[in-house]
Amino acid sequence: MISFESDYIAGAHPKVLERLCETNLEALPGYGTDHYCEQAKEKIRKALDCPEAQVEFLVGGTQTNAVVISSMLKDYEGVVAAVTGHVSVHEAGAIEYTGHKVLGLPQKDGKISAAELNSYLETFYSDDNYEHMVFPGMVYISYPTEYGTLYSRQELEEIAAVCRKYQIPLYLDGARLGYGLMSPAADLTLPDIARICDVFYIGGTKVGALCGEAVVFTKGNMPAHFITSVKKRGALLAKGRLTGVQFDALFTDGLYFEIGAHAIRMAEQLKRIFREKGYRFYLESPTNQQFLILKDTELERLQEQVAVSWWEKPDEDHTVVRFATSWSTTEEDIQKLEEILIQQ
Amino acid sequence: MISFESDYIAGAHPKVLERLCETNLEALPGYGTDHYCEQAKEKIRKALDCPEAQVEFLVGGTQTNAVVISSMLKDYEGVVAAVTGHVSVHEAGAIEYTGHKVLGLPQKDGKISAAELNSYLETFYSDDNYEHMVFPGMVYISYPTEYGTLYSRQELEEIAAVCRKYQIPLYLDGARLGYGLMSPAADLTLPDIARICDVFYIGGTKVGALCGEAVVFTKGNMPAHFITSVKKRGALLAKGRLTGVQFDALFTDGLYFEIGAHAIRMAEQLKRIFREKGYRFYLESPTNQQFLILKDTELERLQEQVAVSWWEKPDEDHTVVRFATSWSTTEEDIQKLEEILIQQ
Amino acid sequence: MISFESDYIAGAHPKVLERLCETNLEALPGYGTDHYCEQAKEKIRKALDCPEAQVEFLVGGTQTNAVVISSMLKDYEGVVAAVTGHVSVHEAGAIEYTGHKVLGLPQKDGKISAAELNSYLETFYSDDNYEHMVFPGMVYISYPTEYGTLYSRQELEEIAAVCRKYQIPLYLDGARLGYGLMSPAADLTLPDIARICDVFYIGGTKVGALCGEAVVFTKGNMPAHFITSVKKRGALLAKGRLTGVQFDALFTDGLYFEIGAHAIRMAEQLKRIFREKGYRFYLESPTNQQFLILKDTELERLQEQVAVSWWEKPDEDHTVVRFATSWSTTEEDIQKLEEILIQQ
Amino acid sequence: MISFESDYIAGAHPKVLERLCETNLEALPGYGTDHYCEQAKEKIRKALDCPEAQVEFLVGGTQTNAVVISSMLKDYEGVVAAVTGHVSVHEAGAIEYTGHKVLGLPQKDGKISAAELNSYLETFYSDDNYEHMVFPGMVYISYPTEYGTLYSRQELEEIAAVCRKYQIPLYLDGARLGYGLMSPAADLTLPDIARICDVFYIGGTKVGALCGEAVVFTKGNMPAHFITSVKKRGALLAKGRLTGVQFDALFTDGLYFEIGAHAIRMAEQLKRIFREKGYRFYLESPTNQQFLILKDTELERLQEQVAVSWWEKPDEDHTVVRFATSWSTTEEDIQKLEEILIQQ
Repeated sequence: MISFESDYIAGAHPKVLERLCETNLEALPGYGTDHYCEQAKEKIRKALDCPEAQVEFLVGGTQTNAVVISSMLKDYEGVVAAVTGHVSVHEAGAIEYTGHKVLGLPQKDGKISAAELNSYLETFYSDDNYEHMVFPGMVYISYPTEYGTLYSRQELEEIAAVCRKYQIPLYLDGARLGYGLMSPAADLTLPDIARICDVFYIGGTKVGALCGEAVVFTKGNMPAHFITSVKKRGALLAKGRLTGVQFDALFTDGLYFEIGAHAIRMAEQLKRIFREKGYRFYLESPTNQQFLILKDTELERLQEQVAVSWWEKPDEDHTVVRFATSWSTTEEDIQKLEEILIQQ
Repeated sequence: MISFESDYIAGAHPKVLERLCETNLEALPGYGTDHYCEQAKEKIRKALDCPEAQVEFLVGGTQTNAVVISSMLKDYEGVVAAVTGHVSVHEAGAIEYTGHKVLGLPQKDGKISAAELNSYLETFYSDDNYEHMVFPGMVYISYPTEYGTLYSRQELEEIAAVCRKYQIPLYLDGARLGYGLMSPAADLTLPDIARICDVFYIGGTKVGALCGEAVVFTKGNMPAHFITSVKKRGALLAKGRLTGVQFDALFTDGLYFEIGAHAIRMAEQLKRIFREKGYRFYLESPTNQQFLILKDTELERLQEQVAVSWWEKPDEDHTVVRFATSWSTTEEDIQKLEEILIQQ
Repeated sequence: MISFESDYIAGAHPKVLERLCETNLEALPGYGTDHYCEQAKEKIRKALDCPEAQVEFLVGGTQTNAVVISSMLKDYEGVVAAVTGHVSVHEAGAIEYTGHKVLGLPQKDGKISAAELNSYLETFYSDDNYEHMVFPGMVYISYPTEYGTLYSRQELEEIAAVCRKYQIPLYLDGARLGYGLMSPAADLTLPDIARICDVFYIGGTKVGALCGEAVVFTKGNMPAHFITSVKKRGALLAKGRLTGVQFDALFTDGLYFEIGAHAIRMAEQLKRIFREKGYRFYLESPTNQQFLILKDTELERLQEQVAVSWWEKPDEDHTVVRFATSWSTTEEDIQKLEEILIQQ
Repeated sequence: MISFESDYIAGAHPKVLERLCETNLEALPGYGTDHYCEQAKEKIRKALDCPEAQVEFLVGGTQTNAVVISSMLKDYEGVVAAVTGHVSVHEAGAIEYTGHKVLGLPQKDGKISAAELNSYLETFYSDDNYEHMVFPGMVYISYPTEYGTLYSRQELEEIAAVCRKYQIPLYLDGARLGYGLMSPAADLTLPDIARICDVFYIGGTKVGALCGEAVVFTKGNMPAHFITSVKKRGALLAKGRLTGVQFDALFTDGLYFEIGAHAIRMAEQLKRIFREKGYRFYLESPTNQQFLILKDTELERLQEQVAVSWWEKPDEDHTVVRFATSWSTTEEDIQKLEEILIQQ
């Protein structure tokens, strides 16, 4: 049995785990005040080329979205996101739990456009009754999106320009940031993202860590007493070292990018195989998540040997499934997949 | 200047106000425990032909929606509503403020269909990841809708059947219930609504009261300690008599229905006038709200003499405006409107 | 049967009701944008001698506390209040419902002291772990308190000085403000309160209105888009005139103060009677609420002819009950009470 | 420098870390559905001697308290806890953030008593106005308490009896459960706790894990769709294995108890040393947290060589500090402390 079920099927990248082991017995203060957290933050600031960036570590993606969005929004505001955005669909209402609405925007392949966003904001403020509606107070995008697609630098700049025009922050969910940045299709760098966005997070859970996401405020805009807001949401780790040490490892000697590059290489091979065998892609994804449309009978057979993720049912006889690669995907996995497909 | 701006431009229906004046000096206990509240509840139960109905009075529509929905939903649930529903758009995020998502359903003229609802629920439960999503825990509809349209008895029965199949309550927002019930197009009675829906409210604010909505739980399903939940949401009136006396008046000698019938007569006349003069309707509404598409230049002139409500801009040169009639609309208002339109 | 059960046993003061009747048929725009609201605000600003005051009308006391406190507190803050404060005990958790803690302070006769407050704040900031605790972000006091007692001008100034030192707003709950201001024991005026406090409300429900409280922000500190926050909490009246007209009446020709003075006169007579008859007071209250300790047998007999409010049980055989006077208390009520007591 | 700052100064117990390393590359499904989670749950059920126990893993203590309390309380309820309880003071308002009040009960050495609890509940329901107050809907205790003290079996049984009488669940916060159970002063076993309490958690973070708490519902009372409620609160780990594997290790060959026993031995030695040297204890704690009253000058000198936790200031010249032992405390640490104290 091989697994392409997700990019969190394995534990931590060996180098990350190694650092956890090496530092395990060191006595450290709690709640993210240890020197590994400090060191990791410093390394991240370097990688961002953004010395003024404010960095804090959280545990998971949904938690990070809820903490960031709810602590930055004003009382009367909601967050604008693609209707397919993770915050819109797959977080069990975590944003609404904080008392704020997710304002859905149309999307294409998981992406929103600056034009749609601008039109939404324009319409909002030209509505005579806007005081009875939720104010758009932040824009949420994911990079890569939930469908593996990427914003180009120009697209991101345009969205950011609309945000600036309406004076609302642009927040980028980077749960799989490493896999986006290292795609050959990407024309954005980490410093670009730090420059263009107001706040974002660098995903650890899906890019080599056991858990952990690094939130980055790039414009001196970290909410006051952020740690207390984090604690209030039950998101403050007692052993802050757990995330500090891991991000320290991920941002040592370019490991984070190496992990990204490896997963992309694996995804490229996987794509080639499916393409050669005439499989139908649900959409063109340049990152580590690949969406295939399989006949249900085909899928049933495949699942005897390969773990994949159910995505949706486009019709009665077909299913869209996701194949994800990650740092833990091996050449052997890919070869084995090819052999299995040949037998099918 | 005449006004068709809304159905809440005037104070209370004279008979309602009269009762407030007559009872004003009577010493009564607070918080809805007085005999007028009891009496009003009893009259409502009679009008509903539903002796087991549990009735409580609240102050306004958005408040009622938030109180009912949040006290009935389970933690992991949200409420399904038309994307144009009042709870979806025009309550400033009041439902989300209670920690619950509004799950948007496509609509036509403000109405959802049983088929769409069924498909939504079916898709939800067939999704492998539904545990990561907000469970549909209630269906919200408005009668009349925000566009003045009405569900037929069959449509309502079908929606209710889907709700029963999935064991979620059907909630009807009756902010303008009186205007719906008395429309010639309506084939639903108040007892029908009590029988078909699990919970609904009889709107007072827009149908002759200064304020007040009567929430009705029809299946013995009022949440335990509902009064405490109402208090917790800041919605409990100290002088409960204010709503009790008003609803007592509204449900004495059929006043509520008389008010509805009058407004509908006025709306019919208004429609006839606009139709005769060749105006374009945004949609066909059989109730007290009429939506007209006016040229902006036309609208500008009209507004010098007539107050109306801005609705939306379908294009650069036109505006959709709402004309609302109510108990306070007079034949003279209608005549005056006709004269003004002739001059235009 | 006579009633001293509360100060909200009757409807509206006749002059208030009269204004509602006179203005009833006037067509007015909704949501507090009508000219009566404007006029009432202007009259209040005059009475406060505070031309820059920002005034908004809400419906009830618990609602007002929840709206004001939750829209002014920052995410990581709670509100400091006497452990006996209305927000601490008798609002069914309405403040906590907004996600904020009520931080209890010791009290004496319902009052907190500047010294206790200062010590609390000092201790808080000297705690090494204060980032893991709820920050004191506002001070709540009531005037009169829940026990009818009053802060002196000096006490209020001292509390305000502590607030300024720690840069947190001072909020005064004036549900019964009129009864406080007109007490012979009061050395504070309405302009004093406007000057000393950052935000407060002028209670209408208990001082002559059917419902309604006027929130006053005195330092240009009304939260941005406050109306949207009000709407979000289900607290925005469609017929804003209902509160506007009433406050217009209350602040015309000094009616609000006249009502206060009358109730205080009635309370003085009531006190005199109880004192002469040797009854035991639970505490010395200079306002319209009087707390008596009665033998349970005595109380039982009394309640056959007089409605009062249960307060608490100090021991097995006694009960503390509250006698409240208001604008609706008459000389006859007092005489009758005296006769009843003589018979006892 | 040696550290007694807390019981979370080190990483994971070596055996726990070893299991993480051994299982690291195994491909596992996410969100707690892997076989290590299953296995760990089964081992916990065995250790509890409670085959019907429902177990779920969460990440941290504050998070666990917020998730458990808010998903079990009804809308109109709050949680009763000692005023010194962790949920009352040191969680930055995490419970209130979920919309529920913490109802403070007097305490002695961090413990509440059945008598106080009973009196509180009796008083609540005999209050005429209880519908305007927060209903006590759960009792929260910690074992050991925040002061290291322990409830005896009889005390716990008595508290549970009061809970049953009022039909509210008893919830035990076991952040340091291992250190409580292994104290020579403890007369409670893990099966006792499972039998007596309705819900509790077995703390991992402070007892040998990197992170993780195991919530146990003992009476078939896990809230429906608990995983969705967990997700909604941002508390669901993608790599559920992280907690599953760790608890699997902790409940293999009695490691959890071994860790507890070791820390207790270390604490006993530490106590002996302080006692012999005539130091003043703040209170008598039989577990791994020891509270000493030090002169400020003394403390300053000590802190040059020993890390401890600031607790509170009983007066101008003294400070209460906490010394905590854990699985990572060594005999050498203790010896070194003794030497340092001798030099002082």
